[in-house]
Amino acid sequence: MSFDLTNSIEILQRTPAVITSMLQGLSEEWIRHNEGGDTWSPYDIVGHLIHGERTDWITRMNIILSDSPDKRFQPFDRFAQMDDSKGKSLSQLLETFRSLREQNLQVLSSRNLAAEDLSKEGIHPAFGAVSLSQLLATWVVHDLNHIAQIARVMAAQYRTAVGPWVPYLRILQTSGS
Amino acid sequence: MSFDLTNSIEILQRTPAVITSMLQGLSEEWIRHNEGGDTWSPYDIVGHLIHGERTDWITRMNIILSDSPDKRFQPFDRFAQMDDSKGKSLSQLLETFRSLREQNLQVLSSRNLAAEDLSKEGIHPAFGAVSLSQLLATWVVHDLNHIAQIARVMAAQYRTAVGPWVPYLRILQTSGS
Repeated sequence: MSFDLTNSIEILQRTPAVITSMLQGLSEEWIRHNEGGDTWSPYDIVGHLIHGERTDWITRMNIILSDSPDKRFQPFDRFAQMDDSKGKSLSQLLETFRSLREQNLQVLSSRNLAAEDLSKEGIHPAFGAVSLSQLLATWVVHDLNHIAQIARVMAAQYRTAVGPWVPYLRILQTSGS
Repeated sequence: MSFDLTNSIEILQRTPAVITSMLQGLSEEWIRHNEGGDTWSPYDIVGHLIHGERTDWITRMNIILSDSPDKRFQPFDRFAQMDDSKGKSLSQLLETFRSLREQNLQVLSSRNLAAEDLSKEGIHPAFGAVSLSQLLATWVVHDLNHIAQIARVMAAQYRTAVGPWVPYLRILQTSGS
């Protein structure tokens, strides 16, 4: 599928509900365990999504669409949520994510993006020129990536419990952040 | 985490809502595309989950707990959904899955499983003796596996659209059924 704004918004607008239905009301054992080392728990992942809403996608879109000649993006802090989430309940984080996503989709909609906007470019700190359509497609895939990661982190807790079924369960063949 | 029945039911009872929130109302392009060859689309995956509710988990639990000396499971047909789902809308499949899962969790609850039940065994066609707790843990991980698969199959459609971001998106590093 080539990039399509309407199809992209279909995914972006449902992600908060998907993640809430995955995590709201679960026992702490499911929510707070990670895959070891500095990998992320489901709780950490929700914090990371919030940080993305605040500093990544719409911020970078605005840089691409601005009149300023400086199109450089700021590097994204992959560990910011470790401080930002402190003392907050999972329910609070889920509500914050839902609210920020809703606001950001309103900003996106208000831009009335045309085809020529989607091909405008910004400068990524690691790999240089990227188009707005690539940024927005990445926002979608990033959501799906973290939905899959939440499922994987929880599944890993039952790696021993499933006994001889391990080779049949692809989600147990991979781990890490 | 070692196997825990209450924690397991927490996941099992929310899976229909998770998958419904992921897929209900999405464009056909998201729902009907697979990863190539005989891999599964999100629509196929929902059919597979229905078939599992009908023939796998509770059926195998009942074999384990029965008084019959024959504890052999029937092999599971991984492609049964290709016929079973024919002519049905995704909404119909989602509702069927929700209803079957609810019934199956009622059966599970009605068994009032004790610790000694969880260690009882059945005979898997491929790898022999498995305990009831391993079967139920696998039911949980199987749900999470297919949630992650749905996310991955959809993400793969934007592999080209994300441009240079591919190496940053782990979900695009893997494909296949």
